[in-house]
Amino acid sequence: MIDLLIDKIKEKQNPTVVGLDPTYEMIPFYIKKEMLERYGKTPRAVAEMFLEFNKKIIDSVYDLVPAVKPQIAMYEQYGLEGIRAYLLTIEYAKEKGLVVIGDIKRGDISSTAKAYASHIGGVEIEGEYYDLWKEDGVTVNPYLGTDGIEPFLKYCKERDKGIFVLVKTSNPSSKELQDRLIDGEPLYIHVAELVKRWGEDLIGKYGYSKVGAVVGATQVKEGEALRKRMPNTFFLVPGYGAQGGKGEDLKGYFDKNGLGIIVNSSRGIIAAYKNDDEFADEKEVGPEFAKASRKAVLIMREDLQKVM
Amino acid sequence: MIDLLIDKIKEKQNPTVVGLDPTYEMIPFYIKKEMLERYGKTPRAVAEMFLEFNKKIIDSVYDLVPAVKPQIAMYEQYGLEGIRAYLLTIEYAKEKGLVVIGDIKRGDISSTAKAYASHIGGVEIEGEYYDLWKEDGVTVNPYLGTDGIEPFLKYCKERDKGIFVLVKTSNPSSKELQDRLIDGEPLYIHVAELVKRWGEDLIGKYGYSKVGAVVGATQVKEGEALRKRMPNTFFLVPGYGAQGGKGEDLKGYFDKNGLGIIVNSSRGIIAAYKNDDEFADEKEVGPEFAKASRKAVLIMREDLQKVM
Repeated sequence: MIDLLIDKIKEKQNPTVVGLDPTYEMIPFYIKKEMLERYGKTPRAVAEMFLEFNKKIIDSVYDLVPAVKPQIAMYEQYGLEGIRAYLLTIEYAKEKGLVVIGDIKRGDISSTAKAYASHIGGVEIEGEYYDLWKEDGVTVNPYLGTDGIEPFLKYCKERDKGIFVLVKTSNPSSKELQDRLIDGEPLYIHVAELVKRWGEDLIGKYGYSKVGAVVGATQVKEGEALRKRMPNTFFLVPGYGAQGGKGEDLKGYFDKNGLGIIVNSSRGIIAAYKNDDEFADEKEVGPEFAKASRKAVLIMREDLQKVM
Repeated sequence: MIDLLIDKIKEKQNPTVVGLDPTYEMIPFYIKKEMLERYGKTPRAVAEMFLEFNKKIIDSVYDLVPAVKPQIAMYEQYGLEGIRAYLLTIEYAKEKGLVVIGDIKRGDISSTAKAYASHIGGVEIEGEYYDLWKEDGVTVNPYLGTDGIEPFLKYCKERDKGIFVLVKTSNPSSKELQDRLIDGEPLYIHVAELVKRWGEDLIGKYGYSKVGAVVGATQVKEGEALRKRMPNTFFLVPGYGAQGGKGEDLKGYFDKNGLGIIVNSSRGIIAAYKNDDEFADEKEVGPEFAKASRKAVLIMREDLQKVM
């Protein structure tokens, strides 16, 4: 999966992953109206809104970006219908040739960790194999240690999938635990060392492991230091755009070949029409809203290409 | 929620929570056969197996225990159908008067954390309110700090729900991060201090907060020390039974009134028929398999009552 991801980044000369994290507020009026009329004020209606919204965004940017990252929480809040929209979004993105990173941040132990790993490993039922979630990679939480990660490693190897382990997140309170010093170094560095160990047997043709790390765009120095410390670890970088990160901040996150990271932007791309004068009249805007997302991707690509 | 949980623990004189964590392997042959015939080798079949299995267990023990804790991962691995079984299990347990703790271990930031908090907060769609997940409380992961917890606190307060934050888990590799020393004390103690702070405004009639902690049964000394340090924090204790914890180990986890914890057992209760001579012929056993679960609950209750 990591080789495929890097192939696509190189092909499109763009290390951007589009965060498909819709909220009710960002759905264009014309989609809301249609789905409320069709399904009433129901979770089904919102699920259909999210799916239609995502499809329009994907149609508008799939030739420019290597990957999308749907955030499962946004769908999960609408229950079963929401999760159905998550699954259909993944299917649609894969049909368009995109790599899909499920932002699920799961983490548990033993048989439970194994069950979560089915996100990338599928399940077998009396000899029949089902790939029900279809993500190419997922994000995972390291707090429970190796027990929680091992089942994912198995599928990284056997099914060529990938994981991105939370190392340093982009939120202000990440410092409460992640920055606390253990033997003179912050907790997240110790997590980074575990991530290296977990991934050392899973390194692909570009020198990067199938076990990646989530490293926020808002901690510039930390990101640079981690790049040096983790030369074989690919970074998934949230926090660009709406959370404050800029291209120039990411210079030290790239390796000398301009590879090594994929940068997520969610709101900044998918809700771009809200800040675009061309679509100022929200009640009037139609499917062309997604053009603003394409513009936002092009601007971001340029911003990142400057420092690659 | 915490008051309701303690009311029920007192009423039933039993601090046991039954972990509804079914696996394919533990489903009795007669249920497997029926569902495979009806639905083929499909996720739907397994979902129906889990639901039928859970109902039989619940019917057999609901008068003896205060709560159940379905582990969402076991259902999630079977995709949408699995999650439907999770939801229907919760509904069934609530109809029987049980408190339901969703073992979801979610953790994320900002709008994403808010979305996950819908597990206990529900969602509003154009003024219509939906409680789609129906858990009374859920487990959460602290690695991202306060940002990831705040949305849950809101619903603990507004909707009288509860959370249990992972502090010290019962798995061997929990030591890799959780036991590392920060300013002379292990990481999990720092998490414990955050948990106290998060819960300090949410204390109920028994002196316990709606913000609880997950503290494994396999670290006896740590559990005792945490009880002293966190007099207002209720503990959800995994690791009893199959993972090695015993009643006598938990003496120091209880407060002087015999309250303060709820002890989870999953396999030890729900798959009890597998180790019960009465049901030795697995191919022959029918719905009476659940009697073994009732026996296991009675034995566990006795074991815990000795030290309460």
